[in-house]
Amino acid sequence: MGKPASKRAVRESVFEGLDRLFHERARLALLTALAARSEGVLFNDLKETCALTDGNLSRHLQCLKEAGVVEVWKSAHRGRPQTLVRLSSDGRRRFVEYLDLLEEAVRQASAASRAASDDSNKKGTAGDLGRGLAPA
Amino acid sequence: MGKPASKRAVRESVFEGLDRLFHERARLALLTALAARSEGVLFNDLKETCALTDGNLSRHLQCLKEAGVVEVWKSAHRGRPQTLVRLSSDGRRRFVEYLDLLEEAVRQASAASRAASDDSNKKGTAGDLGRGLAPA
Repeated sequence: MGKPASKRAVRESVFEGLDRLFHERARLALLTALAARSEGVLFNDLKETCALTDGNLSRHLQCLKEAGVVEVWKSAHRGRPQTLVRLSSDGRRRFVEYLDLLEEAVRQASAASRAASDDSNKKGTAGDLGRGLAPA
Repeated sequence: MGKPASKRAVRESVFEGLDRLFHERARLALLTALAARSEGVLFNDLKETCALTDGNLSRHLQCLKEAGVVEVWKSAHRGRPQTLVRLSSDGRRRFVEYLDLLEEAVRQASAASRAASDDSNKKGTAGDLGRGLAPA
């Protein structure tokens, strides 16, 4: 660990560092389902687990595949085509990094909320705000 | 606390419960900055803290104001117009709820990643996947 950065710089870097590829909430659900199963998940099971339509799941998988985060495998089972999806090892590493950063973001946001709440309770400043200000 | 829901149901409800209004990463930064300052933050300070342009910040604030999450106040300081933004009490309550849910989502995703990683290390299954499957 190096020197601690200023509070403002830390906050900026945490939020800006959150990879948009993982951050959308359906992606978060999708990647969590895949992260739990290193052997991969069948397309239809994934669809059901994440409550997504065929089209939505396909679009998310296309993006994640292009980014090298998931692998999509095709096969046939009793003559019916099957699709297996799994996290790539690079995808797993990047997802875990994203989760670490998100955890830090939540920690900072919760600390900020709690600190201000304590402050407000102590000072009772809630009513002072309007002085000299008009609602827009 | 009632009966524990099934693992699948819990996972679905956590991710689906994440309010999109708060989830975008610039919004997360913005709301964290506001949550830390119950007295409110001037528009220009907020812009700098969150590294947003005038236009982007205005658009985010418009959405959050319409949803009742922030209040936007106008005044003049030495003849210059000033804009003060603060979280509404309802906005603070909803943001804290969102953070609790996000914390739970991160916890579940991290647990899923760790469990699968342990599993994979034990069984060494990584190479078994390709059997009978062709990359798409």
